[in-house]
Amino acid sequence: MHANGEDLYFNHEFLDRLSEKRSDSKWLTAKQTSPDTVFLLFHNLNPLVISEAMEEDGRGDSSFLMTRLRPPAVEPILGRPGTTVVFLGVEKQRRCVPTTTLEGEDDGLTAWFALNTEEDPSELLKFPDPKCFFLHGPMPGLLKLSDIEAGVVAQARAVLAWHSRYSFCPTCGSETRVDEGGHKRTCLREGCRSLKGIHNTCYPRVDPVAIMLVIHPEGNQCLLGRKKIFPSGMFSCLAGFIEPGETVEEGVRREVWEESGVRVGQVHYVTSQPWPMPSSLMIGCHAVALTTNINVDKNEIEEARWFTRQQVIDATVRAKHAVFSLPPRQAIAYYLIKHWIGMNANL
Amino acid sequence: MHANGEDLYFNHEFLDRLSEKRSDSKWLTAKQTSPDTVFLLFHNLNPLVISEAMEEDGRGDSSFLMTRLRPPAVEPILGRPGTTVVFLGVEKQRRCVPTTTLEGEDDGLTAWFALNTEEDPSELLKFPDPKCFFLHGPMPGLLKLSDIEAGVVAQARAVLAWHSRYSFCPTCGSETRVDEGGHKRTCLREGCRSLKGIHNTCYPRVDPVAIMLVIHPEGNQCLLGRKKIFPSGMFSCLAGFIEPGETVEEGVRREVWEESGVRVGQVHYVTSQPWPMPSSLMIGCHAVALTTNINVDKNEIEEARWFTRQQVIDATVRAKHAVFSLPPRQAIAYYLIKHWIGMNANL
Ligand SMILES: Nc1ncnc2c1ncn2[C@@H]1O[C@H](COP(=O)(O)O)[C@@H](O)[C@H]1O
Ligand SMILES: Nc1ncnc2c1ncn2[C@@H]1O[C@H](COP(=O)(O)O)[C@@H](O)[C@H]1O
Ligand SMILES: [Mg+2]
Ligand SMILES: [Mg+2]
Ligand SMILES: [Mg+2]
Ligand SMILES: [Mg+2]
Ligand SMILES: [Mg+2]
Ligand SMILES: [Mg+2]
Ligand SMILES: [Zn+2]
Ligand SMILES: [Zn+2]
Repeated sequence: MHANGEDLYFNHEFLDRLSEKRSDSKWLTAKQTSPDTVFLLFHNLNPLVISEAMEEDGRGDSSFLMTRLRPPAVEPILGRPGTTVVFLGVEKQRRCVPTTTLEGEDDGLTAWFALNTEEDPSELLKFPDPKCFFLHGPMPGLLKLSDIEAGVVAQARAVLAWHSRYSFCPTCGSETRVDEGGHKRTCLREGCRSLKGIHNTCYPRVDPVAIMLVIHPEGNQCLLGRKKIFPSGMFSCLAGFIEPGETVEEGVRREVWEESGVRVGQVHYVTSQPWPMPSSLMIGCHAVALTTNINVDKNEIEEARWFTRQQVIDATVRAKHAVFSLPPRQAIAYYLIKHWIGMNANL
Repeated sequence: MHANGEDLYFNHEFLDRLSEKRSDSKWLTAKQTSPDTVFLLFHNLNPLVISEAMEEDGRGDSSFLMTRLRPPAVEPILGRPGTTVVFLGVEKQRRCVPTTTLEGEDDGLTAWFALNTEEDPSELLKFPDPKCFFLHGPMPGLLKLSDIEAGVVAQARAVLAWHSRYSFCPTCGSETRVDEGGHKRTCLREGCRSLKGIHNTCYPRVDPVAIMLVIHPEGNQCLLGRKKIFPSGMFSCLAGFIEPGETVEEGVRREVWEESGVRVGQVHYVTSQPWPMPSSLMIGCHAVALTTNINVDKNEIEEARWFTRQQVIDATVRAKHAVFSLPPRQAIAYYLIKHWIGMNANL
């Protein structure tokens, strides 16, 4: 069975990032006032959505649409000290008839920007629709977006969260300025070591996380755990940050051992997913256990258990007699679990 | 053919990280003076190696051994302001007879620490052997370690590099202190936002990088590129940082498009490798091209070309008539290329 995480929530790329334009400040400035440009607004990292668009998605979930603001609507907060702007990309489909001006300014590309403000936006802006509101969260709000927009919000929120936590130079403690359309920060202190050569201190952070479904040596059970903060009855995959100097595979083995006391041998990559809380890259794997005794790390995990395939199937169909419930379908953990069921069912 | 990157350089885990001991400061302090403890010394991130151990590895490469210092040898620099200490883990194999003292202090575990000093160590320390020296680099020095020690050095150097660049709090610009055996930094300013909740600003950074061998739609050629800084004639895989809000698979497609103008469809994960320069996680993939026209991004790539399988085989055996040369065997790029050859040869 071929893994394909493309339809996973957060994974859809609606925009072309067009990174070569990040250093073209003339183009970026022109696009910020171009009538077709779309701005997504965040207040303290909470996205502005529109409630009218709330729709049942057939699974009992409701979804929200992002409010797409035009340049005149956001003009009052652009350039204010509490505002951060990030160029997200352009729509993959061009507008049919590029309205080329004499200066050749309009290339027919619809640009998208993300804006975060730390000020109260209701005092500065008039929203286009009274039904707009900021989706508080991040959880579960960020999982209630439309599948098409979730990926754009993942990029926007991850980069904006980086700006909100990394506005000082980690190398010398000085203030920094925003560069490259919001994809870089540069130290303002002349002579700072961060200015010589290329250093990750200047670029957004992405934290790789290993997330794994551990399969019993006999193949018929899988290991799931629950944190105290989970809704009651819910179990999910184990997961943990990959550490410096570690492979994905070793990260999987170490985290499973730390959290459950189970030893893992073979590790098989399945798929990946960005998780913008604030900026993780979930690397999803199936892992084959070598041992079965469970010894949980009580600091991180409340309980871990082996579940039979039938128990997992009962949970996926939300059977009345199901002994546990699954994580939300938007999470890669759900995908890894479903993939395991499918894999076996296909034999 | 099953991918197994375990024998890749930097991938061997010689130590058990034993992360639960990071918060046990009593244990850590005791181990720092325990006679069996091993210290690896770095000066401005350059490791102290011993030349006597230089060995031909049968491929014309020579390798160095890390100098293993004991507590009395490093005592003069422990606790100095320019010195950083990181607990690396314990040897997987216990000493045969744990010499338990009355206080039960010795658990038979041999602890390893990494030390970085910004001061001139030759003025502070007497080295055990006059043949010790600091391997300058990072390249190619870091690729000349013994295969067993390379993984330990990958962890050590990546964490030490993080300390050297992130000694100020990115959220408020204040100074920070080192916690958890060198695996955390904590802001010293009371009331800093970084102290409420858990934030990645306090933990070492790992940068996920997608590195890919792009296969021609017809399956018989692969795409390799060269940067200006490469040795003349050398071609390697394309690669780039995975961005916030992006999957591994999309990162592969975007970077290949940006650097070569080639469109990629299917992406297959192969294996991963830590790359401590300063702290990347290389995520190695095979990617299937949908288009073949090359249009290189001249800022990043000097040239990119399709090579036939025979040309790649000639390069792997270093044939006289080979039209290009491969990256060093220590790099995951070499592994991805060899894996492609093997994959086809196995059909
Ligand atoms: N980049 C990071 N962001 C947040 N927490 C981290 C990070 N790296 C390590 N940690 C620590 O990892 C814990 C979560 O454990 P795990 O996700 O299993 O690795 C957190 O409580 C932190 O102590
Ligand atoms: N974490 C990072 N560390 C260093 N450079 C980065 C990072 N993220 C983005 N970059 C930029 O990416 C360029 C290298 O391109 P690539 O490796 O192809 O993504 C560098 O020259 C930087 O401008
Ligand atoms: Mg953990
Ligand atoms: Mg965890
Ligand atoms: Mg962890
Ligand atoms: Mg890049
Ligand atoms: Mg690139
Ligand atoms: Mg690159
Ligand atoms: Zn600085
Ligand atoms: Zn702070």
